[in-house]
Amino acid sequence: MRPPAQVGQPLEEVDTPALVLELDAFERNLRALAGAVKGRKVRVRAHAKTHKCPEIAKRQIAAGAIGVCCQKVSEAEAMVEAGIADVLVTNEVVGAPKLERLAALAKRARIGVCADDAGNVRDLEAAAARAGAALDVYIELEVGMRRCGVAPEEPALALAHEIAGCRHLRFAGLQAYQGRAQHLRAMSERRAAIDAAAVAARTTRELIEQAGIRCPVVTGAGSGTFMLEIESGAWDEIQPGSYIFMDADYARNEWVAPLPRFEHSLFVLATVMSRPGAGLAVVDAGLKASSVDSGMPTVWQRPGLACTRMSDEHGCLEIGPGAAVPRLGEKLLLVPGHCDPTVNLYDWYVCVRGGVVEAIWPITARGAVY
Amino acid sequence: MRPPAQVGQPLEEVDTPALVLELDAFERNLRALAGAVKGRKVRVRAHAKTHKCPEIAKRQIAAGAIGVCCQKVSEAEAMVEAGIADVLVTNEVVGAPKLERLAALAKRARIGVCADDAGNVRDLEAAAARAGAALDVYIELEVGMRRCGVAPEEPALALAHEIAGCRHLRFAGLQAYQGRAQHLRAMSERRAAIDAAAVAARTTRELIEQAGIRCPVVTGAGSGTFMLEIESGAWDEIQPGSYIFMDADYARNEWVAPLPRFEHSLFVLATVMSRPGAGLAVVDAGLKASSVDSGMPTVWQRPGLACTRMSDEHGCLEIGPGAAVPRLGEKLLLVPGHCDPTVNLYDWYVCVRGGVVEAIWPITARGAVY
Repeated sequence: MRPPAQVGQPLEEVDTPALVLELDAFERNLRALAGAVKGRKVRVRAHAKTHKCPEIAKRQIAAGAIGVCCQKVSEAEAMVEAGIADVLVTNEVVGAPKLERLAALAKRARIGVCADDAGNVRDLEAAAARAGAALDVYIELEVGMRRCGVAPEEPALALAHEIAGCRHLRFAGLQAYQGRAQHLRAMSERRAAIDAAAVAARTTRELIEQAGIRCPVVTGAGSGTFMLEIESGAWDEIQPGSYIFMDADYARNEWVAPLPRFEHSLFVLATVMSRPGAGLAVVDAGLKASSVDSGMPTVWQRPGLACTRMSDEHGCLEIGPGAAVPRLGEKLLLVPGHCDPTVNLYDWYVCVRGGVVEAIWPITARGAVY
Repeated sequence: MRPPAQVGQPLEEVDTPALVLELDAFERNLRALAGAVKGRKVRVRAHAKTHKCPEIAKRQIAAGAIGVCCQKVSEAEAMVEAGIADVLVTNEVVGAPKLERLAALAKRARIGVCADDAGNVRDLEAAAARAGAALDVYIELEVGMRRCGVAPEEPALALAHEIAGCRHLRFAGLQAYQGRAQHLRAMSERRAAIDAAAVAARTTRELIEQAGIRCPVVTGAGSGTFMLEIESGAWDEIQPGSYIFMDADYARNEWVAPLPRFEHSLFVLATVMSRPGAGLAVVDAGLKASSVDSGMPTVWQRPGLACTRMSDEHGCLEIGPGAAVPRLGEKLLLVPGHCDPTVNLYDWYVCVRGGVVEAIWPITARGAVY
């Protein structure tokens, strides 16, 4: 797909739907995270699953991140290819072809991966041995997410023994990500969830170290909670992803100290393509332009306009009483409900500053699902 | 993105997640539609928004379709580029750059477009005049979908006059698509909705023809209702799209005569990447591999396994009592909840027959949203 814009073009001339990144807000978000962790004994490993874009990864590293996380081997390949030197796949990697690719990548960069199964650890060891590579392996700990991961304490210790016994694997520590906590609306709920995860991470680490196995790093945390992980003292590394964009779902959280303020920087630019009645405007962005798994997009800076439903190629905006009525052909900015799967629909970020296109960044790992 | 498979490979060796098309079932679906409309006074214009793939469009035309529909100019461009000679954009096209591209396309193929606004008709005329092209223009009629379209009868007549007065536009008829009817579960509800739409289409056409304007075609209908439109006699052309694939949402419809039986032919192949507990298996396909706007995918031919939630890169399968327990590394086929936005996540169809990859078809118009 060709880019929907050209550098130097005014925003209002950009073809739609387009994924727009407001650079000023994006850069303020980078600085807000750097400011929040300044002086704290924690390192930032930004999550590239959100943006899938080496241009953004490089800016996160320039702002202090030690490297990136990915969820898929193919994402990690895109990052290493672009010169990112330190990548953690915060996920299990299963199956011989993927393990071979992962091990090959570890010859070109520092590569970490998660495991929650002894058989998978042996497969990782075999792949690393064949490639003559060394892999960092983290135990994924189940800390309340009810997805992957082993239970804290004894099951994790057993797996740590397995990893520590492998010649080509380095036991790197614990992946302790409480994903369900990220969107608990009240800060008090998020704090309770992270406090519980911290206990699990800390007791498991102690048990492993008491067994004589060094457990160098506890990593985890997302944009909705990372300051809570930092304050607990149980994490050495945080993995925020969405903070650079702030989607409509995150904006529904109670967003207070100790978290810094992040701003919406990611938008879907859409055109009003039909005005079928007094109360309705239809835009040219639907399910293929904005993911709705976490709710409809909101309409940016247009009070009284609400996106109430989307079909494949249409978004229906209800026009509330007193709202400024959008005219046919008018362009509106939507704030996506969920940034990660929305980004994955596009090939390009149209990067805008002061209403003018400043750059076009390829979403290199778009569709990198395997 | 490179293809996740090679021709000749067994299905179980295909990298995951992958979008799999079972060719036998797909071809039976093509034949089922052809059989259902055989001898009926109606033509088929298959909807390419579903598949975005010229290889599939060509097979639909070989099975009797007179051409395809698209929703976006960029989709139409992909189809014309691949040699499809007759394309109807079943949607309003708004804004000078898109109108220019649409008019340019009409120099290379027969191109139709919908309109629901007089100002837009004048813009279409101006673009066609500048290009020296002729465009078929259909009035989009609001027949119960509550999206785009003008109201039946007088408002449609006024717009027909506008179109008929344009030198470079051919008034081609009415676009009357009752999208909301497609997923009404009971056949009786669908029939009531289509009966009402038929009245609107018929009275509007009569009014326009009484005014001395020929109204050659009424087009519309989807996979969930098309035989009802045919039986009503009010439509000359049908636009089914999903019938080739059948997704999990369509399968929840009461699926009885006069509709033919279609089969699931589209699947997401996924790998079990974690078995964190007795009742749960986690696969490597999440929101970026299967759209959930119309519900979770179902697990193909594995009774007792239910996909109950998905996150960006994970699908959680609950293992019911008595279900065969999937092992780590096992591959499963998921039936997507909604085929159109799921297809739009992938670059390739992995086409399989008898458990072996027979072809890889590019999803040429993937991401063609503008």
